Amino acid sequence: MLPTIDWTGETVVMIDQRKLPASEVYVTCRTAQDVAKAIKTMVIRGAPAIGVAAAMGLALGMRRSKASGTKQFATEFQKLCELMAATRPTAVNLFWAIDRMKQAFAEEAQRGASVAEISDRLMRESHAIHDEDVQSCRTMGAHGATLVPDTARILTHCNAGALATAGYGTALGVIRAAAEQGKRVAVLADETRPFLQGARLTAWELVKDGIDTTVITDNMAGTMMRLGDVDLVVVGADRIAANGDVANKIGTYSVAVLAREHGIPFYVAAPWSTIDLATRDGDAIPIEERTPREVTHVGNTQLAPEGARVRNPSFDVTPHKYITAIITERGVYRAPFSESLANAGPRN
Amino acid sequence: MLPTIDWTGETVVMIDQRKLPASEVYVTCRTAQDVAKAIKTMVIRGAPAIGVAAAMGLALGMRRSKASGTKQFATEFQKLCELMAATRPTAVNLFWAIDRMKQAFAEEAQRGASVAEISDRLMRESHAIHDEDVQSCRTMGAHGATLVPDTARILTHCNAGALATAGYGTALGVIRAAAEQGKRVAVLADETRPFLQGARLTAWELVKDGIDTTVITDNMAGTMMRLGDVDLVVVGADRIAANGDVANKIGTYSVAVLAREHGIPFYVAAPWSTIDLATRDGDAIPIEERTPREVTHVGNTQLAPEGARVRNPSFDVTPHKYITAIITERGVYRAPFSESLANAGPRN
Repeated sequence: MLPTIDWTGETVVMIDQRKLPASEVYVTCRTAQDVAKAIKTMVIRGAPAIGVAAAMGLALGMRRSKASGTKQFATEFQKLCELMAATRPTAVNLFWAIDRMKQAFAEEAQRGASVAEISDRLMRESHAIHDEDVQSCRTMGAHGATLVPDTARILTHCNAGALATAGYGTALGVIRAAAEQGKRVAVLADETRPFLQGARLTAWELVKDGIDTTVITDNMAGTMMRLGDVDLVVVGADRIAANGDVANKIGTYSVAVLAREHGIPFYVAAPWSTIDLATRDGDAIPIEERTPREVTHVGNTQLAPEGARVRNPSFDVTPHKYITAIITERGVYRAPFSESLANAGPRN
Repeated sequence: MLPTIDWTGETVVMIDQRKLPASEVYVTCRTAQDVAKAIKTMVIRGAPAIGVAAAMGLALGMRRSKASGTKQFATEFQKLCELMAATRPTAVNLFWAIDRMKQAFAEEAQRGASVAEISDRLMRESHAIHDEDVQSCRTMGAHGATLVPDTARILTHCNAGALATAGYGTALGVIRAAAEQGKRVAVLADETRPFLQGARLTAWELVKDGIDTTVITDNMAGTMMRLGDVDLVVVGADRIAANGDVANKIGTYSVAVLAREHGIPFYVAAPWSTIDLATRDGDAIPIEERTPREVTHVGNTQLAPEGARVRNPSFDVTPHKYITAIITERGVYRAPFSESLANAGPRN
């Protein structure tokens, strides 16, 4: 299991995903503020992993609290929840995890628990969110693997792997599960500019697992499809609206359009916590725009000249009509998604 | 006019396009071998510019010849032609320019010219190829500008600008001509991984010209189209087959598919020397695969891990069905291209 994020006694430790694959460096977070900064600066990224990190950050922050009574403790908790919620806007798992921590807090407060008891519950809740995420990925992988032929060339975009979750991965979990079942899978990894999660993270994970992996620039995906070198696409998601529209890493939409043009199945794998039935469609999902520097520079190399404008939306929306199926730990959902997702039961 | 390539007395000088936009460095070629190396290593690139460089390289090499008679001179010329032809396989302008230099040589030889006279003719021919290329770009620009609305947000891929030609540019020539006519144009420049011609070269050229330019990563083009931020696409070409299929920089195909999906016109601008009526369709065009390092590294920054495979086809083929019109100095051609191109008359 790759060490995306974990507790080590009194701190939360994460592998610094900005430094991979050149070096494996770990960041130790001693406060909730440290965790919030790590999310914001993309030490850790990936919708499910962000949710886990936020939960751990809240538990860590409250464990450090010097509050003498539950009222002060609740006020501090509320502030930390706001801090975490302000880190990144698109991945709904962040808000889902914060809500779940709030609910745990409320349950303890309601039964008259002490500050220490509430703090322990928050710690246990964050562990549960972590462990359930790994389990979800494994179950999702099993469901998704049924969609993978015995021999398959699979294209993926960004990193929806162990590094994007508490472990195993969503899209890469599907690929791992297929490989574990003995299917012959080969992966085409879009490099995924500007942050290069595909080249840096997906390829790093899969090479470690001994899975045949080829890195391509994002603009090669269409040609690989035209040449018949892609059997299916599977990607993760940062938020799935009630109608099945999917917000995911910038470039996902192009891959989906290209897949449909070539008659190639396009699957989205995500835990149920990524599904946001309260958001009607993709256009209602807030899309984060990040710093131009991610586009204009790689390391110290300047790519674009001074004077040029830059756009850097970190995500895009893929309308549901391009999506063959959505794979979650609860099962595989197909169009019409507004019905199939709604009928899958209330949100956790 | 940007100084892509020129004679300075006894040498051929080019701006080193690998170093832009961070620094403006010029490379001086003293031999035909220097020019061949500059083409191969992409000091100079862009189909029309490669043709001009090859012609100048041949003239330079023969000027340096110490051959005592025309027979030895012809043998040396043949060897240099082979050297130039082996630099890059896809852009047909290279072979077109070599053929034209061969024809000039043959004409002089046939009339019994001396070594010095043949050498002078080769020099004049290379100047003519250079000057005609600039003129073609201006004429092409005028034809293409008629297709640009008074206010237009134009997406382009790679660099089909002054730097890809002897000056003015093909796709960027169309944009420049529209701007010179007072049309309000804003350009979205795909960064164009892996060599980043869009971010590095197109943005650099257009910013110098005061044209509103926004750099995006290649995988943002689809979303910009979906959001209604693109009115038309114009790109260059490295080779156009008799049926209108276009080989151009990797990623062009994806842009074309996305443009059609959104009902956005997709134009190709290229000099007539890019049209290869001897090649029936796009699948017959040889596609160069370049070193993996272009994909795995930017500057000294390692993007992909050891152990991952890499693909790096430098071009792709866009089938003619995605192309709205082909703009050349002879006029604007529309489907069916196999007829419109054939009826445009014999190749120069």
